Amino acid sequence: MAIITITTDFGQKDGFVGTMKGVIWGIAPEAQIADITHEVPPQDILTGAIALWRAAPYFPKGTIHIAVVDPGVGTHRRPMAACIGNHYFVGPDNGLFTPLMTDAWKSGREMTFIHLDQPKYWLRDVSHTFHGRDIFSPVAAYLAIGVPLEELGTPFSDPVELEIPQPEKLTNGWRAHIRVIDVFGNLTTDLPASWLTTRDGLHIRIAGHEIDGLIDSYGHRTPGELVSLVDSEGYVEVAVVNGNAAKTLNAKLGDPVEVVYA
Amino acid sequence: MAIITITTDFGQKDGFVGTMKGVIWGIAPEAQIADITHEVPPQDILTGAIALWRAAPYFPKGTIHIAVVDPGVGTHRRPMAACIGNHYFVGPDNGLFTPLMTDAWKSGREMTFIHLDQPKYWLRDVSHTFHGRDIFSPVAAYLAIGVPLEELGTPFSDPVELEIPQPEKLTNGWRAHIRVIDVFGNLTTDLPASWLTTRDGLHIRIAGHEIDGLIDSYGHRTPGELVSLVDSEGYVEVAVVNGNAAKTLNAKLGDPVEVVYA
Amino acid sequence: MAIITITTDFGQKDGFVGTMKGVIWGIAPEAQIADITHEVPPQDILTGAIALWRAAPYFPKGTIHIAVVDPGVGTHRRPMAACIGNHYFVGPDNGLFTPLMTDAWKSGREMTFIHLDQPKYWLRDVSHTFHGRDIFSPVAAYLAIGVPLEELGTPFSDPVELEIPQPEKLTNGWRAHIRVIDVFGNLTTDLPASWLTTRDGLHIRIAGHEIDGLIDSYGHRTPGELVSLVDSEGYVEVAVVNGNAAKTLNAKLGDPVEVVYA
Repeated sequence: MAIITITTDFGQKDGFVGTMKGVIWGIAPEAQIADITHEVPPQDILTGAIALWRAAPYFPKGTIHIAVVDPGVGTHRRPMAACIGNHYFVGPDNGLFTPLMTDAWKSGREMTFIHLDQPKYWLRDVSHTFHGRDIFSPVAAYLAIGVPLEELGTPFSDPVELEIPQPEKLTNGWRAHIRVIDVFGNLTTDLPASWLTTRDGLHIRIAGHEIDGLIDSYGHRTPGELVSLVDSEGYVEVAVVNGNAAKTLNAKLGDPVEVVYA
Repeated sequence: MAIITITTDFGQKDGFVGTMKGVIWGIAPEAQIADITHEVPPQDILTGAIALWRAAPYFPKGTIHIAVVDPGVGTHRRPMAACIGNHYFVGPDNGLFTPLMTDAWKSGREMTFIHLDQPKYWLRDVSHTFHGRDIFSPVAAYLAIGVPLEELGTPFSDPVELEIPQPEKLTNGWRAHIRVIDVFGNLTTDLPASWLTTRDGLHIRIAGHEIDGLIDSYGHRTPGELVSLVDSEGYVEVAVVNGNAAKTLNAKLGDPVEVVYA
Repeated sequence: MAIITITTDFGQKDGFVGTMKGVIWGIAPEAQIADITHEVPPQDILTGAIALWRAAPYFPKGTIHIAVVDPGVGTHRRPMAACIGNHYFVGPDNGLFTPLMTDAWKSGREMTFIHLDQPKYWLRDVSHTFHGRDIFSPVAAYLAIGVPLEELGTPFSDPVELEIPQPEKLTNGWRAHIRVIDVFGNLTTDLPASWLTTRDGLHIRIAGHEIDGLIDSYGHRTPGELVSLVDSEGYVEVAVVNGNAAKTLNAKLGDPVEVVYA
């Protein structure tokens, strides 16, 4: 039984995602479908790319991930499908899959990119504004019932790559950036904790505050305290215990976080 | 494996929809269940009817759609099920299915309406305030496992019909209305693009602005520009490229949109 | 086919819940998964406990309920699983299951509590901050494919109990409390309607207003009227017909509601 995930900026109120599930089940009635998120800010490809990249690895191999944050829908941007590692991805060729591709390149895993140009695997009537429904959902469903990736279109090798901010090296550490602000207001940075050779003497500076060292989890300090720790994906995070660091610090995506030895 | 959809004004926070899924799976454990939307404004039957009507046709035949926007719950309004075209619908008889019925009448498709009056297909204890859980979910589940529609109650022929606004004819075009404001702030009207004999000389007037002609998709103009195009269901739409037309124009449901040749 | 539910304070935007479904389906690919709610206010164990307690009984026996409202994640609080009545529950030992345990005690049903201390049933890498993904999801999935509860850890008998407010007896009735404010702004109290020996002469006092008696359902009065009725779980509720009682009365959780004979 194939598993399909859906990541979009469609929100929950308009029925767009439900409609996509109808299209999928019309072709692959036994597919299991999970929503990753539909609360990506409108047209924010980077936030969508990060959300998908964080969730996808926890799905079993063979999972098919649809992602639709698609400001270029109906123009010449390519619709695409890809095999990255042992997962499938379907969506617009606009950088939504960049972080996943970067990880695959680093670990030497094979990738295949297909330009979706075979209308027989789409809905019969394709609108100019909702390819999530008309192209990406049916293509994912055909993958789910065993149509080979290569039959869905033409191979290509130059997918659009998104520029993803990276930590900058300082003499005594890094200037990282806030990459994710979660529902609790926790601030995850782009600095992998694995880059830290030791935790001794570590200081985290954010918005005029300085935090001494990393703790293991929120419950080790008192409510309201500003702390730093390693998040569940292995990156340095800033949080307020039982509180909301984003609100406390008035923080936003991309803001600098210095992680230094001093 | 039967497919069931759910459309309500229950929101996501209270667990009402999860509870309905529990009831359904207690009777039909293999049913696939998709949420259409639960963000219909409280008691707004018209918005719920439009949301269901837009999504339902994309589900495969035999799909069972539960819709619950039900200000009259616990009064004498009838609980009903229907077969419209080749889909099933279950909910209160208050006009939620009117747009679907109108389409079926126009295309000469058969319809059956059943007054749900057989408590053996309901939960044993029926509350006065949550028929979504106590009547509509079990009835949908029994349909899913093959109980014939006719066994669930008594046929009737006079379902409540909702008054749905329609475009008004002008000498040189139509006065349409905003029917849907989606998550992107796009403004879909009630004017089918198929009514336009030509796109030459077309002007769209909304809130003191005039737009020249229809474009194919958002990406054909520059961000911030006010444009008009055909939406993914085939209706005339007003949008701001990569922006939010509803906020820009301070638009609300029902507002007039003139589509004229001039 | 096993059924799993998920109740959290994770919201919908970050992909945390989708990630949990990926972990579950990696182990139990055929499990049906229903969301109860993910809109529990951050770290609000009581609200999470009430939401789960209201929804769980409507699922079929054998259902596995994951609940994660977990301010103590990564500290010494126990991860636990339980069999209460004929349902399974998985989550932190912090009181999330107290209302369910109270009902089971009252009705003399058996309960088993297991301290989850067998890492072979967890993800290989367990973070300090996301046990919903790393411990509770895989444990629930192993239950779903038939691993006996007892193999998942060590029995214990002293689960953490949450203090749940109860109605206070007055000479002529009760001082109840608002327990749930739903999406419609309806105010459900902690007073079971079954405690009322008669409905004659009943008065409900809230925020300086007095309501005479209980009605059967919203539609029996005119829009805007403040009314009292029995909610769908059998508790006394205060509502505004087609309106929002919480906003009208500026009510909040825990506020007193006097239900008296006078």
